[in-house]
Amino acid sequence: MDEYQRVLTSECSNHVNEDVNLKGWVHRVRHLRKVSFLILKDRSGFIQCVLESKIAKMKITNESAVEISGKVVSTNQQENGVEIHVDNIKMLSYAAPIPFEVNNDEIEANLDTILNHRVLSMRNPKVQSIFRIQSKIVESFQEYLRNKGFTQIFTPKLTSQGAEGGANVFSLPYFGKEAYLAQSPQFYKQKMVAAGYERVFEVAPVFRAEEHNSSRHLNEYTSMDVEVGFIEGYEELMKLENQLLIHIFEKVKLACANELKLLNIELPELKEFPQLTLQEAQQILKEQFEKTSPDGDLDREGEKLISQYIEKKYLTPFVFITNYPTRKRPMYTMLNQNNTELTDSFDLIYKGVEITSGGQRIHDYQQLIKSLASKGLDLDNFKSYTDLFRFGFPPHGGFAIGLERLTAQMLNINNVREATAFPRDCDRLTP
Amino acid sequence: MDEYQRVLTSECSNHVNEDVNLKGWVHRVRHLRKVSFLILKDRSGFIQCVLESKIAKMKITNESAVEISGKVVSTNQQENGVEIHVDNIKMLSYAAPIPFEVNNDEIEANLDTILNHRVLSMRNPKVQSIFRIQSKIVESFQEYLRNKGFTQIFTPKLTSQGAEGGANVFSLPYFGKEAYLAQSPQFYKQKMVAAGYERVFEVAPVFRAEEHNSSRHLNEYTSMDVEVGFIEGYEELMKLENQLLIHIFEKVKLACANELKLLNIELPELKEFPQLTLQEAQQILKEQFEKTSPDGDLDREGEKLISQYIEKKYLTPFVFITNYPTRKRPMYTMLNQNNTELTDSFDLIYKGVEITSGGQRIHDYQQLIKSLASKGLDLDNFKSYTDLFRFGFPPHGGFAIGLERLTAQMLNINNVREATAFPRDCDRLTP
Repeated sequence: MDEYQRVLTSECSNHVNEDVNLKGWVHRVRHLRKVSFLILKDRSGFIQCVLESKIAKMKITNESAVEISGKVVSTNQQENGVEIHVDNIKMLSYAAPIPFEVNNDEIEANLDTILNHRVLSMRNPKVQSIFRIQSKIVESFQEYLRNKGFTQIFTPKLTSQGAEGGANVFSLPYFGKEAYLAQSPQFYKQKMVAAGYERVFEVAPVFRAEEHNSSRHLNEYTSMDVEVGFIEGYEELMKLENQLLIHIFEKVKLACANELKLLNIELPELKEFPQLTLQEAQQILKEQFEKTSPDGDLDREGEKLISQYIEKKYLTPFVFITNYPTRKRPMYTMLNQNNTELTDSFDLIYKGVEITSGGQRIHDYQQLIKSLASKGLDLDNFKSYTDLFRFGFPPHGGFAIGLERLTAQMLNINNVREATAFPRDCDRLTP
Repeated sequence: MDEYQRVLTSECSNHVNEDVNLKGWVHRVRHLRKVSFLILKDRSGFIQCVLESKIAKMKITNESAVEISGKVVSTNQQENGVEIHVDNIKMLSYAAPIPFEVNNDEIEANLDTILNHRVLSMRNPKVQSIFRIQSKIVESFQEYLRNKGFTQIFTPKLTSQGAEGGANVFSLPYFGKEAYLAQSPQFYKQKMVAAGYERVFEVAPVFRAEEHNSSRHLNEYTSMDVEVGFIEGYEELMKLENQLLIHIFEKVKLACANELKLLNIELPELKEFPQLTLQEAQQILKEQFEKTSPDGDLDREGEKLISQYIEKKYLTPFVFITNYPTRKRPMYTMLNQNNTELTDSFDLIYKGVEITSGGQRIHDYQQLIKSLASKGLDLDNFKSYTDLFRFGFPPHGGFAIGLERLTAQMLNINNVREATAFPRDCDRLTP
């Protein structure tokens, strides 16, 4: 795409004393007696434009889309060292008065207003930054895995059964049958490993019909799924996720320095994440915080406290919790060799919020059948899954990272909806 | 992820006279009197393993997952110059007799059998190659656009209305409301342009409740969507798509040389794609092939014939068809300045199949309202869309490429289901 005419605001300092053509939105305009100052924003940044004589009187509203031609002039009044002396402004698309102020440092409106007017709220530079960073997270996730021999997969979201069986599944009529929306690509990513790809990832929406509205739950979210064949054990998966997150943090730091600065976020240098067994974590909570945990799990408060403890002790916001009890994990989870009451599974907690579940999966047909039976599940319902394990299913495992949660935690966003372009919850199906 | 023990089959030639540890599947095993030859496959390729004495008698079935340790030995009998003299084989996962032969050059089974046993059919090297190439198509699509300043977006698949209004939409109950599955991210990608990102792309599933089963339709497919703000006209979009496809072809050629060779595909050197207005295309069909086209469109036969004509005349498998009539395009399509009966829209035909629809969109509020009214659409139903155009919506447009169709056409696959890992149609919701 040639844009022989257009120069980005961030490129102006390379065009001093030249005539340029800029396009973007009016971030702010200030009329003095004989001169007006207009801040133009485009996808690359901001620039001050100086309007004199007739043009200074032009009726221009904030957030209008405009094309500006003028001369780039050096100035020491501006951070980027240049401003535009405007010859002409062409109105591309006039903006009516906007319902709330988006160009202050922070939007002073409640979350519902921000989400209802998503296009306008994203014009705020801080809000805008969130989804630039999100895009970079996904880019670096994919980049790291591709360099490690992973294949990107695309698996169906319309399925004939829920992956975990039963609850929290959206269903819909499908040509005389009943279809379900995928809660996760769990079975499909396992299938792609067994199909010979060995190492696969997927970045795609998943759907959870959970009725509770909380600041960290969505009914539709983006799952970054990873599955790896021929592993030696689940420790390998934690190591992979650790390295992957180190890569993501480094890339985001480099590529989104401006966005992070704007959001006042300093990302830490990540090293090896500490690990605690669930039992150890529960004991620490009891001893250090007099906190009792629910059977075989941590609750939200527990996740927060254990994160605080780890942050203090190891100076890192991440901690793996491992070896959840067999009765609390799905039927496909690999049992621990030393204690079959426990599983070779893990969660990853980041700043007090679980952003990953993962683990090794059962690959032995007989063991899988036994596991299904011990969970009281009907073997017939899982036949199309279990049958595959008769044809050389290698040892394997994986994990999934919730993109919106990772974004929110990284940027100290309290409600995951703010890290979602167009969030879906029990009360929200628009815009 | 360290794999200090494991060496890939493709790496063996770097380890001559060393002991290595390999993991993979038994592609084929041939027992002679005192020796057995086993072809091992992993994600990187194939290697011959020589089994002598006791190991030669081991019961090994095709498609079992195994771990093999042995010595890498030079040989001029093998294409890669090495083979493995095996010390030990560990059975990781035993394969029962498979229901059809997957290790011949072609799978001799009908499409239903191939799709019903997807994991096994993908073990066939040719079938396996299809989805490696598909992954590379997406990688290079994303790479090209990111380098051009595009942001990757993630928009909801659960919506409160169909983007085009009405037909062919799946619907489902959603917490007391009715939700629809997105037929395309059309409105959302436009919104993200207007939100300030200017240039966005999305790679995500879309859902079409179309009842007809054809060799090129799916009820769920992967749409590679692109939307660009501040364009001068729709020609810019065609140029972008042209350059994008040149990049994709070059990258696939480089990275998937083995896969293409296996599939006997030679990808052409792409240049500038020819363009025909719809009217010109229809006239050529009439004059050259005595073929009448449906009103304001090409039918399937017409797309094939025009592709043949272009291939012969310009030696390229691609052709843009432009300026579809206003009455045949969605309400958001920009009208042509010189003739408002026509639109600034295009389709891209590749080897006789449409793989893209695109065009400039209306960005002027009044013009949009007029367009809705002229289509007889109820303004109230589109208020949440049209209202956005009051707040500085810049000139913009875009296109979408169907990933499975592009893959199928590139690889001379007749039925798009074969270019889909787990296809969904009116009769198929499994595996």
